[in-house]
This record gives sequence, structure tokens and C-alpha cells, in this order.
Amino acid sequence: MSLATLDTSQHPYLPESSSTLFSAKASQGLSFEQIAQHIGRNEVAAAAIFYGQAKASAEDIEKLSDLLGIDHELLKSQLSGFPDRGRTVEMPPKEPLIYRLYEIVQNYGYAYKAVLNEKFGDGIMSAISFSTKVEKETDADGNNWAVITLRGKWLPFSRF
Amino acid sequence: MSLATLDTSQHPYLPESSSTLFSAKASQGLSFEQIAQHIGRNEVAAAAIFYGQAKASAEDIEKLSDLLGIDHELLKSQLSGFPDRGRTVEMPPKEPLIYRLYEIVQNYGYAYKAVLNEKFGDGIMSAISFSTKVEKETDADGNNWAVITLRGKWLPFSRF
Amino acid sequence: MSLATLDTSQHPYLPESSSTLFSAKASQGLSFEQIAQHIGRNEVAAAAIFYGQAKASAEDIEKLSDLLGIDHELLKSQLSGFPDRGRTVEMPPKEPLIYRLYEIVQNYGYAYKAVLNEKFGDGIMSAISFSTKVEKETDADGNNWAVITLRGKWLPFSRF
Amino acid sequence: MSLATLDTSQHPYLPESSSTLFSAKASQGLSFEQIAQHIGRNEVAAAAIFYGQAKASAEDIEKLSDLLGIDHELLKSQLSGFPDRGRTVEMPPKEPLIYRLYEIVQNYGYAYKAVLNEKFGDGIMSAISFSTKVEKETDADGNNWAVITLRGKWLPFSRF
Amino acid sequence: MSLATLDTSQHPYLPESSSTLFSAKASQGLSFEQIAQHIGRNEVAAAAIFYGQAKASAEDIEKLSDLLGIDHELLKSQLSGFPDRGRTVEMPPKEPLIYRLYEIVQNYGYAYKAVLNEKFGDGIMSAISFSTKVEKETDADGNNWAVITLRGKWLPFSRF
Amino acid sequence: MSLATLDTSQHPYLPESSSTLFSAKASQGLSFEQIAQHIGRNEVAAAAIFYGQAKASAEDIEKLSDLLGIDHELLKSQLSGFPDRGRTVEMPPKEPLIYRLYEIVQNYGYAYKAVLNEKFGDGIMSAISFSTKVEKETDADGNNWAVITLRGKWLPFSRF
Amino acid sequence: MSLATLDTSQHPYLPESSSTLFSAKASQGLSFEQIAQHIGRNEVAAAAIFYGQAKASAEDIEKLSDLLGIDHELLKSQLSGFPDRGRTVEMPPKEPLIYRLYEIVQNYGYAYKAVLNEKFGDGIMSAISFSTKVEKETDADGNNWAVITLRGKWLPFSRF
Amino acid sequence: MSLATLDTSQHPYLPESSSTLFSAKASQGLSFEQIAQHIGRNEVAAAAIFYGQAKASAEDIEKLSDLLGIDHELLKSQLSGFPDRGRTVEMPPKEPLIYRLYEIVQNYGYAYKAVLNEKFGDGIMSAISFSTKVEKETDADGNNWAVITLRGKWLPFSRF
Amino acid sequence: MSLATLDTSQHPYLPESSSTLFSAKASQGLSFEQIAQHIGRNEVAAAAIFYGQAKASAEDIEKLSDLLGIDHELLKSQLSGFPDRGRTVEMPPKEPLIYRLYEIVQNYGYAYKAVLNEKFGDGIMSAISFSTKVEKETDADGNNWAVITLRGKWLPFSRF
Amino acid sequence: MSLATLDTSQHPYLPESSSTLFSAKASQGLSFEQIAQHIGRNEVAAAAIFYGQAKASAEDIEKLSDLLGIDHELLKSQLSGFPDRGRTVEMPPKEPLIYRLYEIVQNYGYAYKAVLNEKFGDGIMSAISFSTKVEKETDADGNNWAVITLRGKWLPFSRF
Repeated sequence: MSLATLDTSQHPYLPESSSTLFSAKASQGLSFEQIAQHIGRNEVAAAAIFYGQAKASAEDIEKLSDLLGIDHELLKSQLSGFPDRGRTVEMPPKEPLIYRLYEIVQNYGYAYKAVLNEKFGDGIMSAISFSTKVEKETDADGNNWAVITLRGKWLPFSRF
Repeated sequence: MSLATLDTSQHPYLPESSSTLFSAKASQGLSFEQIAQHIGRNEVAAAAIFYGQAKASAEDIEKLSDLLGIDHELLKSQLSGFPDRGRTVEMPPKEPLIYRLYEIVQNYGYAYKAVLNEKFGDGIMSAISFSTKVEKETDADGNNWAVITLRGKWLPFSRF
Repeated sequence: MSLATLDTSQHPYLPESSSTLFSAKASQGLSFEQIAQHIGRNEVAAAAIFYGQAKASAEDIEKLSDLLGIDHELLKSQLSGFPDRGRTVEMPPKEPLIYRLYEIVQNYGYAYKAVLNEKFGDGIMSAISFSTKVEKETDADGNNWAVITLRGKWLPFSRF
Repeated sequence: MSLATLDTSQHPYLPESSSTLFSAKASQGLSFEQIAQHIGRNEVAAAAIFYGQAKASAEDIEKLSDLLGIDHELLKSQLSGFPDRGRTVEMPPKEPLIYRLYEIVQNYGYAYKAVLNEKFGDGIMSAISFSTKVEKETDADGNNWAVITLRGKWLPFSRF
Repeated sequence: MSLATLDTSQHPYLPESSSTLFSAKASQGLSFEQIAQHIGRNEVAAAAIFYGQAKASAEDIEKLSDLLGIDHELLKSQLSGFPDRGRTVEMPPKEPLIYRLYEIVQNYGYAYKAVLNEKFGDGIMSAISFSTKVEKETDADGNNWAVITLRGKWLPFSRF
Repeated sequence: MSLATLDTSQHPYLPESSSTLFSAKASQGLSFEQIAQHIGRNEVAAAAIFYGQAKASAEDIEKLSDLLGIDHELLKSQLSGFPDRGRTVEMPPKEPLIYRLYEIVQNYGYAYKAVLNEKFGDGIMSAISFSTKVEKETDADGNNWAVITLRGKWLPFSRF
Repeated sequence: MSLATLDTSQHPYLPESSSTLFSAKASQGLSFEQIAQHIGRNEVAAAAIFYGQAKASAEDIEKLSDLLGIDHELLKSQLSGFPDRGRTVEMPPKEPLIYRLYEIVQNYGYAYKAVLNEKFGDGIMSAISFSTKVEKETDADGNNWAVITLRGKWLPFSRF
Repeated sequence: MSLATLDTSQHPYLPESSSTLFSAKASQGLSFEQIAQHIGRNEVAAAAIFYGQAKASAEDIEKLSDLLGIDHELLKSQLSGFPDRGRTVEMPPKEPLIYRLYEIVQNYGYAYKAVLNEKFGDGIMSAISFSTKVEKETDADGNNWAVITLRGKWLPFSRF
Repeated sequence: MSLATLDTSQHPYLPESSSTLFSAKASQGLSFEQIAQHIGRNEVAAAAIFYGQAKASAEDIEKLSDLLGIDHELLKSQLSGFPDRGRTVEMPPKEPLIYRLYEIVQNYGYAYKAVLNEKFGDGIMSAISFSTKVEKETDADGNNWAVITLRGKWLPFSRF
Repeated sequence: MSLATLDTSQHPYLPESSSTLFSAKASQGLSFEQIAQHIGRNEVAAAAIFYGQAKASAEDIEKLSDLLGIDHELLKSQLSGFPDRGRTVEMPPKEPLIYRLYEIVQNYGYAYKAVLNEKFGDGIMSAISFSTKVEKETDADGNNWAVITLRGKWLPFSRF
């Protein structure tokens, strides 16, 4: 199995922590599944920490530095701030895998809105009070299916 | 409960069928849940037909014209072609509900890619061999949560 | 005093209700302050209903049709759906007044983020669980000052 | 409590003073609230100085170099010019917290304009003769609310 | 001498008043110089009213309807609102004359900023407390020169 | 008085001469007014040379190297080519001072065109056979006003 | 030989005169070469008048209305204003023939600048004091070659 | 006479050969006219080689290395690949000289198309089977005129 | 089998001929394969005529009007001009099928260039002296494969 | 014959492996045809690996390091991750050869869609279950033709 790596020539605007974390991950040969299990978080969240898209708690930092063999103080200083989210993907995404997700929003956006509005009223599904996961299913014919679940708190528009 | 409607002043580039379907839906007072049940499809798919984003089969057209009281020939002629997808949402989406979905792709795009690649190898989750659904959950504190599931066939890049 | 009006030549993509409401407002000669008082909402919210950016409740619709002399059924049908927000302002805004607000976000965006993060932790100020108001102050030298207050619920990023 | 930090990999176009100031802030472990109190300015203004978005007076520079332990001459030379504002946020903002502010302008822009015009006449709220502040409120249920106040001088369009 | 006219096929998003005013101007055969003299305003301001970019006072409206032979009530209703500025020029401008002005900003923008900052300190030249005029000069060789003067109040950034 | 400086972190694409000139200006503590007087040019032109937006003559180079204490050969080699104009301002400008100039073009563009066409016929005001200056006025109430004059040769479109 | 025609469905923003002129051209079956000869102008200029990109003199209008059988007063009123140039081609051009011209500018732009600067000094080739023509050559092998000549006055940048 | 030079701070994405060639040109003090004569090519083509926009043949490389005193092997290795054209000019061009060429395409694009189609039929003027040259003319009044000739093979669309 | 149709609400900028041809195709119930056979052209070329992207010869027009039962004079007048290509697809394409083709160019663009350059030298594959076809293959497992062939004349860059 | 090379000044965002591979290819003097034969893949696929657009298998890496004389461990570590596709071509492509491919999509996109839909039903041609090849043909007149074949699995939209 190949592991996801980071080539900083291609992602020059990621935080320093990304390069620290990915290069440790590569030398330890660990998958996000293994990392996620170790820190007790979902593997999408674990990967999001690596890309500077999610905040690591003090405990996360400790466990990550242990598992990945990174100097604890270094990692702490690199991860102590608040994530500056949204810097990894250039929109519209050029990467084919990510584009497919974008296309789902483009094609089904108003259908989701219509169904959500009828089910919940006037509001939005939060992307902040939010979790997500990725699962793998294999059907009877041996085909693999990816299942991504998005779960967000429903926020009704305030009346004022 | 309010129903999703279509204001053609705001969506001048939708197909003619959208205005036929939405105005019949409004006069019949039907929700997408009711429509979906009648045609035996998921309600996101039903809404996608209304927005010209999914193809209606001959049977779907028949059932829709029955349920909604639309002349069968008219609906058939308006729905007989192939959907010209992607015309409903202007990207980046300005609509707050749809923007939240876009933001999820923007923030977690590379995290999804990393996790999917490690789980499945080099490829993409299809947005064509694909289904999706929306569910409503209410937690112990009475908060509502929207759950959107995306399920797509895994397509490995061909070796050539 | 002049009243805000709507020239539909300039805003062809607003919902039909906008033109109904604004033309009734013009013939009744009512300000948003008077309209807001009548429906018991903030005047920014009242104006937002006129621009199709906020949902009117059943009671709002009744009161608006009474005050503005609009046929109740007509207004109900035009306002019954869910607002399709974000269609009024082309970004970056060309309108000088709106541009100044945009410029505040552009110039102070990261300063707000830094201060909010330090005060509240990792999260966002909701624009949905949100209210806003506009006030007028006059200083000792007779200068007028506009005061806009934005009040949003703090949403911490979920840990997952 | 975490402190806001600066990762220059992510903000390569900020002025040199930003990196001087943020790295001193990190080693001193000071919040913007503490820094603002020390220099007698609002904490948003203090943060804006750090991001190169506001001018520091000679006294500000002196106080900042004292508090943060930065060589006075160095800081003076880095802060002596005029801010080149608008370089921190890429518009539309990808950062979720900043996007919410942008969305408020996008959704309520014309409502603000209509209300401001009716209250003040033809003109704009200045973003230059302007101040802003951030406050934290906690409601009876323990929810936190962020309150941002924008206060700008009203400038009527000149008649010529 | 030719007169400036308006072809509404080319400017579909101008306010209704633009087409009323320009077509009356054409049938009366009046120049902006003549119109400006009649209403006692600068000719750039007069033209800006015609393009919906400046507010006409009650007196302006009266004088314009007299001079141009437009029904007074009609003109009053079309000009009673607040201008929705910025809708005439698509940026970057494609029109060669307007592009030259844009190019001046593009080429000399930072030179103006440097000189203005050194002369006035940290602030901006207002485009609201602002007037402008166009003059024609002919040099000794018979060449014509256009002279555009921009005069705006200097607004220093507030300290807060 | 503060002097305009250059922070090359913020302007990485300026020519090498910009950094040579600005850093000498800073160490000599000279304003553009002083520099302009020394080389016998307008101060906007002087600043434009610093930003790589205007060509310095052989004499200008000599005088600049004398006044600023820059090695004559170095400055000559850095300024000997032809300016590659238009690289300083990103359009639309994010800098508030420069944006105000841009906004003037956006709002009054067609008004200028209409007035210029009626005064001069079909053509443009040259931005090449062109000069500009900045003046400071103070009114009776002590308010400062910036006056920018644009003077360009009128070029009629050739008949062919 | 086919003649160039105008399909107004595809060019909704051209001036009214374009549709008057092109439909008369089609019914008279005239080429631009014939039209140009009749009015004594180059055929590119003649076509530019048809697309609203060049001004027709009073004589041109008279000759065009004679040749094309258009009511003289109608044509005069439609062509009396000043061209609002730049509205025909969307940039980058999607039309393959026009794209090739655009590509020449994109590929050889700096080469032209370098050669022109060395030949003429610091300045530009005017696109206003400008004429152009199209010629057809056939080589010995029977291949056709299009030759486009651009001839513009050299304008040196003013020293100020 | 000044010579065209290259400031790599302003053109970071040009090929390495550009900087090799331009710096040799500067130290040899050669114009493109002289270089072109030496290699037996048009001076626009010579400049295009310098900007990485045209391929140098083996002989061109030899002659260039001789004339410019560049190590032959170095130049050969830097010029041996295939040009990656289109990277010099950012479109729309900000450089005033290049913008004028762009404006000619924008204004006369459809006029060229109409005239070319009527002269040659349905097809395009090739920008590949193409040559161009720049000439200088001086008229009786001593004005200089730049003449740019574009000559491309006519390619008819294939029938299939 | 469904037939491709045209919904003019979704394609307002196609030429008038598109709506004439598509509505006749729908009432005759003909596929592009049948139409192509009748006029003796490839079916992609036939469809391109319908979308205004290819020129129909006099014979094509005659055959199309016969087959589709369209008045010959009407069709001739609508198809007599030269196609204004490039107006059907908004780039980047939002339509999923067309996006896949775009993605192939985005992902393999430089690989094609490298291989073509090594095989043919410095030049391009013409998109004008060009033909294309679509074929259907079914593999042993019953999967369908689409095969698109692009065949263009190789044009070497001219030496000048 | 010239070989395709990589100038990293022009492609700063390619992965490190690109520069490793291209510089080895240059010193070995190998064409993509030779490389493709050695690793048993199509030459477009081989080139795509060089540009970071296709995944190399473990065997590919071994063979490439052998053929090109690259340290095996180095190449393995640089090629072990998953390609981050889409980063080579800036869209719309400025490179003339790649633009021609883009133009084919732009001009024939809807024609392909119509023909594919009629042949296969509602779905897309996969760009993932996909292969492509480039061939050279020489016609009777000695003209060279490039033939590019795109072969993708047909994916019907799922019914849900």
C-alpha cells in the first residue's frame, strides 16, 4: 500500500507543521488510519491536522510527537496557533478526486437546499459544528464504493 | 411547513421543465418527500429532476405528470432530452446553505484525497456511479443534525 | 427625506416579491423604519425581506400586505418559498457604500480572526444565528456617525 | 488559552514587521488584549498593526518595542512607512471565520444601503474615519456571542 | 458637433431614468454643457445624473424636466431613489477612452500614494467629499489637451 | 513627517532599482518633494521612477545617484532598460487610497467620456502624452483637500 | 461567396445600428469590399462601423443609407452618438480566428515591445492615431496568405 | 540609444536562457537589430528567442553563443528543448505598449473576421505558419509611425 | 432511445438556426447518426452545425431542409453567414461530460506536448485542418467504451 | 531530433520527481518513445509520469531508475505518494499546442455530448478508466498529421 505524502514543491503555502508532520509520517511509514487510532480521532480529522485544516489539542500534539518521533517543543510551537483554513485547495479544484466532490456540490447544490429546507426550514447545515467520515464498501461484484458522510448541526436563521 | 418553490426571475437559465414542474408542485402543495415516494426515487434525485440535473425515465415522467396534474405530452417533450447539468449553481456559491457544502470541499479536500488514496489506491470516487441522500437526526438535547451521505464507485486510474 | 426604491432595470435577478414590495412601498411612501415597526422586526431585516434575503413568517406576510396594500394571496405566494440568498450584491461590490463594508472585511479580516480566536478559541462567529442593526449617532460637532452592530453566536469547530 | 501566531509560510506577502512582531509576541506569550492595553489602543487596532493594516505612531512603536523586547531601531525602521493595506485577505476569503463576515456583506449589503440611505441621505459610512471593536457576551444558556461594532463617519456625496 | 447619446441595447442595466433623460436630450439637441449651465452644476455631474451615478436634488429634477420637456412626475418618480452607483463601467474597462483613465491608476497608483502620504500622512483622498471637472486647453501648436481635475477631502485614518 | 518606504516582502515583482532607490531614500531621509526638486521633475514622476513606472534619463540617473549616494554605475545598469509598466498595482486595487482613484473611474467613467466626446469629438485623452501633479489645499475650516490634475493630449481616432 | 452576417441572438449587446446595417447588407447582398469602396474607406473600417467600433461621418451615413437603402433619418439617429468601443469581443476571445490574433499578442508581446523600444525609445504605438488593412496574397504553391498591417503613430512618454 | 534589458525580478517565470541571453546582450551592448542581422532572422524573431517564445536552431545557437560570448554548451543545453510559449505576457496585458496591441484585437476583432471571411471563406489566419515584422516610418511632419505586419497562412476549416 | 434536444432557455446565445434545426430534429425524431448519413458528413460535424460551430455548405443546407422539413429559404438565410464559434461551452465547463474532456487536456496537456514535439518537432496539431469522430466499443465483459479520435494536420512554426 | 526538457524556472510547482526525471532524461539523451518502450507503457503515460500526472508502479520506478541512472531509493521516495494531478497546465492554456486541444473542447463540446448521449444514453466518458495515445500519419502529399485517440469507459448516471 502506498502512503499519502507531501511534496512541498507543490504546496508551498502550507504551514511549516505540514512539512514536519508529513516527513515524519513518511519515515515512520504510518497511514492516517494508524495515526487516527493513536490520537483517538477520525482519520479525516487526522489528515486535516496534517494539512493545517484542523486544530490539534495539547493532547493531540503530545501523542503525535510520540508516535511520529517529532520533538515535542517543535511540534507544539508549530501547531500552537489557530489554523488558517482554506489554503490547500485552489477552487475550482484541478485535482480530479477533489473535483468530483466539487462537482457534486455544483450539480446537486439546489437539490440539497430544496430537500434540506423542506425537512428543516430556513437555515443551513453547519460546516463548523460538523463531522465527517470516509468508509469503504465492497459490493457483491467486488466493486469498491467510497462512502463519505457529512454530519452538521442544523442552524436556523435567527429572526431579528 | 413551507415548500421549496422556484422563482424564475432568479433562475432564468433553468430548462422549461423546471418551471412546469415547480409551478405544478406549488399548486398541488406537494413536498419532495411526497414526490419521491410516488416515483420511487430518493428525494434528492427528485429535486434534481426539478432543477434539470437528473434524467427522468419514461416511467418517472408518467408518474410525475399523474401526480402533479401536468399534461403528459408536454412533460414528455420537455423532459425527453439529456440534462445539461451544472447550470443551477454559480461557483463559488453565493447561497449560504450551498456555500457550506463548498467550504467542506475547500477545507477537507486534500484530507479526503489522502484518506481515500490510502484506503483505495490511486483513483477517484465517481460522481456519476453515485447516489446521495439526506437524513435528519435529533440529538438528546433536541438539536437537529443534517446528515448527507455521498456514495460513489471507486474508479482506479487505468494503467496504459 | 428620500426613500429607498428599486429600479428593476438594474436588478433583473431579484425575486418577483422584491418588485411587488418596493413598488407598494413607493406608492405608500413608507420608510423601512415604519415598515419594521409595523411588523415588529429590525429595519435591516425588513429591508432584507424586500431584497429577498430574509424569510418572512406568515404573520410578517399578513402585516406587510395590510400595511402596503398588497393582495394577501399574491404576497403569500411570492414569499412562501425559501430565500435564495446572495443574489443582490455582485462581489467585489461596485456600489461605494457597500464597497466600504467589503473593504473593512478585506483590511481587518485577519485582525478580527486573531482577536476572536484569542477571546473564544478555534471557531467562527455565525452569520446565521445572527442579528444586526444600524444606528445613527451625532457627535458634539454635529457630525453624523453610522454604527453597525453584528452579533453572531460563537460556533467552536467540532472535534471529531 | 492559545495565542494567535503567524506562520510566514502561509503569509509570504506580509511586511517584515509582521514577522518581527508575531515572533516576539509568541516568545513573550502575550495576547492582543494585553498588547492593546499596553499601548492604549483597541485590540483590533493592535492586531491590525501586527498584520501591517494600521499605522503605529512613534509612541506605539516605543511601547511595542518595550513590551515585546524588540530592538527599538529595528522596529522603528520596519514600521516607519505607510501601511500598504489590503494584502492579508484574498477575496473571496477562503478562511471560514473571515468568510462569514464577507457573507454578511454579500447578503445584507443592499439592506444596509437602503436603511443607511433612508436614515442619512445619499452618502457612505467611512471605513477611514472609522473604528471597530469586538466584544464577547454570554447568554443565560451559556452560549457565547461575538459582537462586532463598526462605527464610521457619515460622508454625504458632495454636490458639484 | 455630435452629442453623446445612449443606446440601451448596449447598456441594459442602467436605470430607467437614463433612457428617459438621454432620449429627451437627443430630441432637444442639448449638450451636457448646456444642461449643466441650466441646472447650475458641473457638466460631469450632469452627465453622471444621466448615467444614474449622481443624485439629482428636487430642484435639479424640476429644472431637468423643464429644460428637457419631460413629464415632471415621471422624472421625479424615476429619480427619487438613491443612485446604485458603479453599474455603468465593466472593469477593466474595454472602452478605450475610459481604459486610459484606468491605466493612469494602474501605472501611477503607488506613486500617487507615496506622494499623498508624504504630503498628508496616513489616509486617503475621499471619492465622496469630492468634485471633478473637465477642461479643454489648446497649446501654441494647435494641439488640444484634456485636463481632468480630481479634488477630494483628505481623510486621515482614525486612531482607535 | 513619515516618509514613503518600500517593503520588498510586499512587492516582490518590482525591478531591482526600486529596492536600490527606496533603501537609499530611507537612509538619506529624503522626501519625494526633495528628490523631485533635485532632479527637476514633478514629484509624481519622481515616485514613478522609484516604482519602475517611468524612465529616468541619463541626467536623472546621475542626479539621483549623487543625491542618494548610490554607485553611479550600479544605478545606471539597473535603470538603463525600458520600464515594464503596470506591475505595481493589482487590479482591482486592494489598497484603500488607490481604490478611491479606481472608484472614480468606475463611477464617473461614462460621464467623463460623454463630456470629453462632446467637447473634443471622437477620441481619447492620452495617458502617454500626459502629465499629472498632486497639490494640497487647506480650506477656511482647516480641512485638507488633495487635488490631482491629469493632463493628456487629445488624440482623435484616425479616419481610414 | 458567402457574406458576413449578424445573428443578433449571438450579439445582444451591439448597438441598434449594427442590426440595421447588417440586415440591409444581407438583403442587398453586398460585401464589405463593395461597401468600403462606396464610402471611400478601408474595408476594416467599414466593418468596424457595422460592429459599432468606428464613427461614421455625416457623409458616411449619407452614402451608407443610399447604398444600403436605409432610411436616412433612422440611420443618422442610430449612428449620431459616439461609439462605445470594446463590446464585441469577449476576452480572451473564444472565436478561433480572433483568438489567433490574441495569441500573437500573447506570444510576441514582449518581443514587439523590445524591438519597438530599441527602434523608437520609451513610448507606445498608438491604437487611436492608427489605421489597419487586410490583404490577400497567393504564393507560388497556390496557398493563400492573409496579411494584416497595423500602422500607428509613435507616442513617446512625456517627461514631467 | 537605450537597449532592451531583462530584470529577472520582474519576470521570474522566464526560462533560464532568457537571463543568460539578456545579460550577455547587456554586456555586449548589442541591439536586437544587430543580433538579428548576425543570425539572419527577423528582429522580432530574435527577441522572441530571448523571451523563450521561439525555437533557436542549432545554427542560431552557435551564432548567438559566438556573438554574445556565451559558452556554447551552456546555451545549447538551455535552448535545446521546445519553447513553452505564452508565459511572458499576463492577459489582459498591464504594460501600456502591449495593451495597445491587445486593444486593437478587442476593438477590431470582429471587423477582421468579417473581412477575412469574405475574402477567404471559413477559416483562420495561422499564427504558426506565420511571420511578423516591425518597421519605422517618418512622415513629412517628422512624426514617427510604427508599422507592424502580420502574415499568416490561411487555413480553411476541414470538411468532415 | 432518447434524442439530443435543445432547450433555448438554457442556451440563449446560440444562433437562430440552432433553434430551427433542433426543433425540426425533435419533430422528425431523427438522430445525428441519421442526419449525418443523409448529408454525408460525420455525426460530430452534423451536431456541430446544429450548435452553430461548423459551416454548412449550400448542399448541406439543401439536404438538411429536405430531411428536416424546414423551409429552404429560411434555413439558407439563417445558415448563410460564417459560424461565430466558441459560444456554446462556458469554460471551465460545468457540464460533467464536457468537463471530462477538459480535464484530459488539463491533466495530459504537457504530456501530449512533449510527445508531439519529440515526434514532429516544434509546432502544433491544427484544430482547423482537423477532423474528429466518435466510436462505440463494447468489451468482452459487456462494458461500453467511447473512443474519440482527433486528427489534425501538423503545423511547424515558421522560421522568420 | 530535439528532446523535450524541463526548465524548472518555468514550472516551479511541479513535484521534485519531475526535475529528477527530466534532468536524467536530458543527460541520457532519451526520448519518451524509448522510455515508454523500456517500461512497457504508452509514451503519453510515460510523459505523464514525468510531469507528476500519472502514478508509477513499483516496477516502473525500478525500470526508470535503471534506464535513467537515478538512485533507486531517491526515485522511490519521490514517486511513492499519489499524484496531485492538474498542476501543470494553467487554464485557459497559454501554450499554443495545448490551447488547440482546449479549443477543440470549447468548439465541439456540445457536439460530442449530443452524439455520445444519443449513442450511449445519459452518462459520461470516463477520464479515469481511460487511455490515450498519439500517432503520426503522413499523407500522400507528405503532410504530417497528428492523431490523438481518447478511449474512456462509458459511465451511465446511476438511478437513485
